[in-house]
Amino acid sequence: MTYCVALRLKEGLVMLADTRTNAGVDNISTFRKLTVIEHPGERVISIMTAGNLAVSQAAVNIALEQGIAPRPGEEPMTLHTVPSMVRAAQLMGQAVREVYRTDGPSLEAQAGDFSVSILLAGQVGQGEMRLFQVYSAGNYIEATEDTPFLQIGEHKYGKPIIDRALHYDTPLDDGLKLALISMDSTMRSNLSVGMPIDLMVYRRDALKVAMTRRISEDDEYFRGLRQSWSDALTKAYRAIPEPGWEF
Amino acid sequence: MTYCVALRLKEGLVMLADTRTNAGVDNISTFRKLTVIEHPGERVISIMTAGNLAVSQAAVNIALEQGIAPRPGEEPMTLHTVPSMVRAAQLMGQAVREVYRTDGPSLEAQAGDFSVSILLAGQVGQGEMRLFQVYSAGNYIEATEDTPFLQIGEHKYGKPIIDRALHYDTPLDDGLKLALISMDSTMRSNLSVGMPIDLMVYRRDALKVAMTRRISEDDEYFRGLRQSWSDALTKAYRAIPEPGWEF
Repeated sequence: MTYCVALRLKEGLVMLADTRTNAGVDNISTFRKLTVIEHPGERVISIMTAGNLAVSQAAVNIALEQGIAPRPGEEPMTLHTVPSMVRAAQLMGQAVREVYRTDGPSLEAQAGDFSVSILLAGQVGQGEMRLFQVYSAGNYIEATEDTPFLQIGEHKYGKPIIDRALHYDTPLDDGLKLALISMDSTMRSNLSVGMPIDLMVYRRDALKVAMTRRISEDDEYFRGLRQSWSDALTKAYRAIPEPGWEF
Repeated sequence: MTYCVALRLKEGLVMLADTRTNAGVDNISTFRKLTVIEHPGERVISIMTAGNLAVSQAAVNIALEQGIAPRPGEEPMTLHTVPSMVRAAQLMGQAVREVYRTDGPSLEAQAGDFSVSILLAGQVGQGEMRLFQVYSAGNYIEATEDTPFLQIGEHKYGKPIIDRALHYDTPLDDGLKLALISMDSTMRSNLSVGMPIDLMVYRRDALKVAMTRRISEDDEYFRGLRQSWSDALTKAYRAIPEPGWEF
């Protein structure tokens, strides 16, 4: 499986993805699921993928390199050239449909699974900073201020902490901590999500990446966060008063 | 859906179940999923069920009332009369198989779902206090000191806190708090799990129920726990140092 979480906050974006892929528990590999496109001063677009790895890689390749012509006879567009974030989400969806057109029937013939979910976020030129989720059908939804995060893959374990603590106004560094805690909770409870994890942070209107980082098992900050969080949770539940119920 | 969690700790058992059932989001009802059998001084057996409500009710009825004869011609046994917890788990499994035998083909004909999971825990006479999970196939597993809890239904949201904080040696009242926190996390993130919730606590070797309680929306302690937990989580993540990463 996979776990990816994307936050679209007032101050900027946080994108966080694990790297584990598995075909059964005895065939586990590390694949990068976070891709970042940066043309400083002009655009930053970041993608994270979950689902069938062949499908998601094919779709990302189309969106990044091969491109899709807006109309027959026109020059193909890629994520490097689309004029807006909405067009980026549409292009990503078209790329998924293109893969379904070419690979879908063969996959079905082999009882393979055509499933892919993609988180796509960024900012192009003077446009808004936006975050989208693209589905297997090529359609998409967008994160709003009410729900300033989207998740794909094994999302349930890491949802409660974000549901409770994250708001659109949450500062970017607090958002980053919450995303890391959410990832840690998922990795502890589900073996199919695993280290290293890939991070991208973007500050609104910067039109350049604030940071990318591959966080490995021996990352000192992440190890400290895991430990502090475990200790804090234990302290927190112990501090809750006992029920006055007789038993 | 449903969420039920059972803890088998050094000091005793905690059984906690929500009461929401749904056939689509527009058909939501409240059904008790926790059943307790008590013969003071002789046995306490508690059951929680998830899955197809018709299947689980039919299986519980067989196990509690109609009974199953150990061998043809013998007197049927029920959970009121089985001589041990292992026999209780086996009887529960046989009851599930009996329901499959009578209802399975018709369910399949209607594309219905024959799925049920049952947590069964308690103590009979001088025997050990035990906790089992019975599957749709009628087979079962048992909780151990390494993994002193079992969950059925919508289990992922509420797993991280228990994974981190619960141990076999955790005192019974702390275990109860963790079960309530786990339930609260699930209800906040998933509408299909809902109040009121049913609780049973049993102290090892007591052979009588320590407490049962239906906890409703306006239960003062549970409301306090929800609030304290939310506040503590927010404080806890804020107290984690900022990453030293430049961005």
